[in-house]
Amino acid sequence: MALINDHYLKLTKNYLFADIAKKVNAFKVSHPRSEVISLGIGDVTQPLCPAVTEAMHKAVDDLATKERFHGYGPEQGYMWLREAIVKNDFLPRGVHIDPSEVFINDGAKSDTGNIGELVRWDNSIGVTDPIYPVYIDSNVMIGRAGVMKDGQWSNVTYIPCSEANNFVPQIPDRRVDIIYLCYPNNPTGTVITKEELKKWVNYALKNDTLIFYDAAYEAYIQDESIPHSIYEIKGARKVAIEFHSYSKTAGFTGVRCGYTVVPKELTAATIDGSERLPLNPMWLRRQSTKFNGTSYISQRAAEAIYTPEGKRQVKATIGYYMDNALMMRNALTRLGLKVYGGENAPYLWVKTPGNTDSWKFFEQMLYGAQVVCTPGVGFGPSGEGFVRLTSFGERDNCEEALHRIGRWMNERL
Amino acid sequence: MALINDHYLKLTKNYLFADIAKKVNAFKVSHPRSEVISLGIGDVTQPLCPAVTEAMHKAVDDLATKERFHGYGPEQGYMWLREAIVKNDFLPRGVHIDPSEVFINDGAKSDTGNIGELVRWDNSIGVTDPIYPVYIDSNVMIGRAGVMKDGQWSNVTYIPCSEANNFVPQIPDRRVDIIYLCYPNNPTGTVITKEELKKWVNYALKNDTLIFYDAAYEAYIQDESIPHSIYEIKGARKVAIEFHSYSKTAGFTGVRCGYTVVPKELTAATIDGSERLPLNPMWLRRQSTKFNGTSYISQRAAEAIYTPEGKRQVKATIGYYMDNALMMRNALTRLGLKVYGGENAPYLWVKTPGNTDSWKFFEQMLYGAQVVCTPGVGFGPSGEGFVRLTSFGERDNCEEALHRIGRWMNERL
Repeated sequence: MALINDHYLKLTKNYLFADIAKKVNAFKVSHPRSEVISLGIGDVTQPLCPAVTEAMHKAVDDLATKERFHGYGPEQGYMWLREAIVKNDFLPRGVHIDPSEVFINDGAKSDTGNIGELVRWDNSIGVTDPIYPVYIDSNVMIGRAGVMKDGQWSNVTYIPCSEANNFVPQIPDRRVDIIYLCYPNNPTGTVITKEELKKWVNYALKNDTLIFYDAAYEAYIQDESIPHSIYEIKGARKVAIEFHSYSKTAGFTGVRCGYTVVPKELTAATIDGSERLPLNPMWLRRQSTKFNGTSYISQRAAEAIYTPEGKRQVKATIGYYMDNALMMRNALTRLGLKVYGGENAPYLWVKTPGNTDSWKFFEQMLYGAQVVCTPGVGFGPSGEGFVRLTSFGERDNCEEALHRIGRWMNERL
Repeated sequence: MALINDHYLKLTKNYLFADIAKKVNAFKVSHPRSEVISLGIGDVTQPLCPAVTEAMHKAVDDLATKERFHGYGPEQGYMWLREAIVKNDFLPRGVHIDPSEVFINDGAKSDTGNIGELVRWDNSIGVTDPIYPVYIDSNVMIGRAGVMKDGQWSNVTYIPCSEANNFVPQIPDRRVDIIYLCYPNNPTGTVITKEELKKWVNYALKNDTLIFYDAAYEAYIQDESIPHSIYEIKGARKVAIEFHSYSKTAGFTGVRCGYTVVPKELTAATIDGSERLPLNPMWLRRQSTKFNGTSYISQRAAEAIYTPEGKRQVKATIGYYMDNALMMRNALTRLGLKVYGGENAPYLWVKTPGNTDSWKFFEQMLYGAQVVCTPGVGFGPSGEGFVRLTSFGERDNCEEALHRIGRWMNERL
């Protein structure tokens, strides 16, 4: 008889964003005239830019003709896109990536979830805490996370990022096989300096650790000293796989396109220690077998963001979101709240007043200001006492939300 | 240290379509003036139909506006598409599927590869032979296939489809946990009757077997007595997951859209036998964690094929490919070749003359007629002595290819 993968039984029955949606819906039902503003969901609101939509229209027209029809694309994605990526996302930073090291995908979520298939189920994993739940959940499903005990997974090394360490993750005191890093960080909006990132690359070189580096928000970095790619650090090509996404860079949350870099030097050992095998051909094999590429239209859309007008327009939209973030930081700080992030990322990590726990503050904000945030504890134990706000909303809504929060907080006092 | 998933080491180094490409390229290099016609690849050649491209243009325009912008879609795909699916693909056949049982995806390849994550790595699997390599390879990667010995995987039950049994797969004499069926069949182009399919559903009910039913080519069925969905068989909702794709139905090989049906009644046991758990919520959890949906444009494109004009246009394109198939069947039969399939599927399964082995016949056809086919043994042991031809080509190319094959074969005699 077919037996289920019982690792699924270990998954927490409550999934953060589903829980939030339930509570918000309950509020809306009991307060039908209220207009709730969400600063919780990480989805964009601004339309795609003209350079992109023009390219998409052209791509649709290609598919409508015999001569320019495109069926199955090359397994790693079209060369014209991979070349644009290496020329624009890496070369200007002094990083040399070969197109054969680039794998176009349908967004970072798929690849950060599926990449674990390349490595043994019993590798140990380390994650910064708080963290985007997907990294852990995909490991729970494959049996790598152990069991949940007192709010923590038994086979996971948690690397706390908190006020105590100024959100700088500390190198573990033990060897961990695989480390997930996401910078700029979701949910805290904090960033990592070159000096700190170098410590991680060195740790990985020393311990033969694999780093899964999620750079989904790198386009939001404003401070020129902050690295956009782990490959700006010498030695990283030997230890890191890097994930990129156009979802937040260019508003492609409904378009689905991103890419993963697997350098040719990246190898991992077989369990008997007899050989080291390169991961690039393994990832190619995995994708050739279980994926058929992202749509031609999405790839042409991504190509367009690298044109001069595309770059300009994408930068303007990112600027729009970062102006929101600045406005939110200032307003919340003036209210006496401690705010982290929001300077190089579209996420603000806000300390709850008086050590209120995060789900309680979430509910207070919902009922008191009709604003939805995301309770920090949903991202892990170190998230307790914080909430996440995103700056992806409409300018008007951000302003209104801040106004309401201000009024509500002032009434509380 | 991070250790690789060494199941990957068991994968055959040679991947069928990559090998074919290599040999074809070698031929082209040594015969630079020849114009090779490929009847081997399973990719479509006709452009997307107007109903679809108009819908895609509208969808792009939506994404260019604030009011009609669409970011992240619902996890199972947009309701308007799932409703169109249940109303058009199932209801007219007397099959009742609920939209909550439909999961929109980016094509059947991803889901047929990833579905295995829901079940234990040590379930046994059965496949019809010959078979599309992906079903087996995804199981090799997860450790479910055992080791390769004498051309067969040790933990796989092969269910031969050959001339001897008229390509009707016989019920195994033992219990197998998971069975893959693909009808209309790739590569043989043969179909399964309701009576025969009923035997499989009954076998599965009796043995608590899970059937993964790939219906990617159901739109090609011409004979009204042939089932389009396994759910036309009573009891199938308890045992089968069904995969659909718009790739061949509507030419979406470069657009990426399909869907998987996981009925609410479908359950599987935990290893301790203490409970049975439904797979529908598990698949939702898997997709919510490791997938972010297929693009809004692709979903609007799929919705359009269910409009009256969409249906008409899609039917016309399928008719074009089936006219190719008929022409190919007739011509090859007149040459004295034994041809299977091609009546309810865009694949023809051609027996090589004089028991020539399939790679040899492939090379003879390449050098003798400059036509590329796919050697049957690449699909499994029972494929030896056959080659696959596809009817997706341009009409002109099909005619020219048949002409050349005819001339070549007559010269051989």
